[in-house]
Amino acid sequence: MSDAKALKRQKFEAVYPILRDELLAYLKQEGMPEDAISWYKRNLDYNVPGGKLNRGISVVDSVEILKGRKLSDDEYFKSALLGWCIELLQAFFLVSDDMMDQSVTRRGQPCWYRVEGVSYIAINDSFMLEGAIYYLLKKHFRSEPYYVHLLELFHDTTFQTELGQLIDLITAPEDHVDLSKFSLAKHQKIVIYKTAYYSFYLPVALAMYMCGIPHTPSNDPYELAQSILIPLGEYFQVQDDFLDFAAPPEVLGKIGTDIIDNKCSWCINTALALATPEQRKVLDENYGRKDAEAEKRVKALYEEIGIRQKYAEYEEAAYKRIMGLIQTIPEQPSGEGVTLKREVFKVFLDKIYKRQK
Amino acid sequence: MSDAKALKRQKFEAVYPILRDELLAYLKQEGMPEDAISWYKRNLDYNVPGGKLNRGISVVDSVEILKGRKLSDDEYFKSALLGWCIELLQAFFLVSDDMMDQSVTRRGQPCWYRVEGVSYIAINDSFMLEGAIYYLLKKHFRSEPYYVHLLELFHDTTFQTELGQLIDLITAPEDHVDLSKFSLAKHQKIVIYKTAYYSFYLPVALAMYMCGIPHTPSNDPYELAQSILIPLGEYFQVQDDFLDFAAPPEVLGKIGTDIIDNKCSWCINTALALATPEQRKVLDENYGRKDAEAEKRVKALYEEIGIRQKYAEYEEAAYKRIMGLIQTIPEQPSGEGVTLKREVFKVFLDKIYKRQK
Ligand SMILES: [Mg+2]
Ligand SMILES: [Mg+2]
Ligand SMILES: [Mg+2]
Ligand SMILES: [Mg+2]
Ligand SMILES: [Mg+2]
Ligand SMILES: [Mg+2]
Repeated sequence: MSDAKALKRQKFEAVYPILRDELLAYLKQEGMPEDAISWYKRNLDYNVPGGKLNRGISVVDSVEILKGRKLSDDEYFKSALLGWCIELLQAFFLVSDDMMDQSVTRRGQPCWYRVEGVSYIAINDSFMLEGAIYYLLKKHFRSEPYYVHLLELFHDTTFQTELGQLIDLITAPEDHVDLSKFSLAKHQKIVIYKTAYYSFYLPVALAMYMCGIPHTPSNDPYELAQSILIPLGEYFQVQDDFLDFAAPPEVLGKIGTDIIDNKCSWCINTALALATPEQRKVLDENYGRKDAEAEKRVKALYEEIGIRQKYAEYEEAAYKRIMGLIQTIPEQPSGEGVTLKREVFKVFLDKIYKRQK
Repeated sequence: MSDAKALKRQKFEAVYPILRDELLAYLKQEGMPEDAISWYKRNLDYNVPGGKLNRGISVVDSVEILKGRKLSDDEYFKSALLGWCIELLQAFFLVSDDMMDQSVTRRGQPCWYRVEGVSYIAINDSFMLEGAIYYLLKKHFRSEPYYVHLLELFHDTTFQTELGQLIDLITAPEDHVDLSKFSLAKHQKIVIYKTAYYSFYLPVALAMYMCGIPHTPSNDPYELAQSILIPLGEYFQVQDDFLDFAAPPEVLGKIGTDIIDNKCSWCINTALALATPEQRKVLDENYGRKDAEAEKRVKALYEEIGIRQKYAEYEEAAYKRIMGLIQTIPEQPSGEGVTLKREVFKVFLDKIYKRQK
């Protein structure tokens, strides 16, 4: 990590304890018992701050780009707060997803529900991570004209993500392999709903609201942003799926398990679309099995089918398509006030294009 | 059930399929796969409409009392919609609570997570019951001046209920008995947060917003309503706890299991407050055990301690105290517009006072 990037991260991380302490002060003020307060603290500390924080930090970055200048302390705090609200939303999703998937570790430590004494309480703990968002928004944004837009944006995005999670859960249950349920169309739906809305559209839309960008009856800038960020999020996840298969573990920082876990990944869906009946049989017999030999056979088939080449073509096409979309953003400010800028989207695209991990 | 009550219930129930179909239409419009749409339908139908519906119907009742007249079709629909939003919130809580408690049945059928093929997907299903609330509010109340108040009320109430659930979970885990964690003060906290806010304050506050009752800087009518409804909800839950022990199963319609389930009930907390060291030992050794003999010993001790008499005293005092609070509501309309009415609260109190089931 560059020094600038590390400093940026540190500055963002420094906001977290302030927000956590506000939440704990609310519990105290409501006369909650000490053991409940310390439980909530442990829940927050264990599940919220330890990730890559890309989503949260991208709110701050986007606000800076849109305003075209350094932020005041108050502007920084508020944009970081919105960023932490995304991190809270993500923590809500991850804590519960780990239970639904019966996963073992997350971010190099045991999943929260597997921590001694937690177990099913993790369900309510995940709710309280989500609940924190609305407490913080109310406390800090109540008097802003865009407050109701923030609330609706979080509601809409949460519901979209839950829809994506539902399709994923019923399409690719870890313990029951049925590749006839898979398709590239289904994969696209899962990816857009489960990942793209909250990871890509949400941070930019939050930044846009904070900058006072208004909705318009035609050429709504929020719709324009969405029309770019959803394909961008889709590309990101396809890449994530590809790297799970193709990246060396020492570069990726983890060992890919999508094949073993019966994930509805871009790779398997692409393979299914291209497979001969014989190849399909190999996939049916070996995908999603808890067996290293079966995994090897699937990987060999991916190579046979030329998935690396397919991905390279996909990536080039996606990059060009998204760049084209970015060019449709009008660059001249159309009157007064902050307007959308191509730079916001280019920053995202540059971070993603040809990444290795 | 009286004919009038049955008709009222039927009219309220008739709104449910309309709302469900609106939610399913949203999924369709978003291009969700058929199996996801039918899964959500089954989730809604299984978990939302089958309860007593007291909370939901009380929104309609309260709006009628506040307006002092019959409702137009549109007013009826909107107040019933708000009522169904409480039922959705409750379904979200119950589906997840049943998982956290590892319960077996709910409303005479298997708990949702125990239905074939559901299992951990029930976690995400519970989220989607909550998510439905904000979809429906946005669709039907977006242009109302009190829209943001509805959103905040649902957020606040949800978080309060989750706080109550947290205290309950860490105070009275089903599999680990430690009566030193119990107290009447802890019981009160659990009851107010886990039950009173969403079951009593929420329906009335929703009705008040729908009737356009404004917040005021002093003598805020919402605070006044809360100052009555929280004690009312507390009384309701104490009664619920008492009936679990004292009501004949054929009257109650179920067999009480609070003693066996290690529930932090009003009865055990009252017994603990009154017990001699010898009696305390009996409670420590027998409370919360999966054992009919142990349960019998606790019940005998409750009788010995005179819990029926204690409850009768509690009930009389609670009734008088709450009646006194209701009298503090100014009866004359203070100018134009709808104002609070004592009748709203009396209806609640009358339904509860000396109920046998
Ligand atoms: Mg997972
Ligand atoms: Mg999952
Ligand atoms: Mg992955
Ligand atoms: Mg329960
Ligand atoms: Mg429970
Ligand atoms: Mg009970």
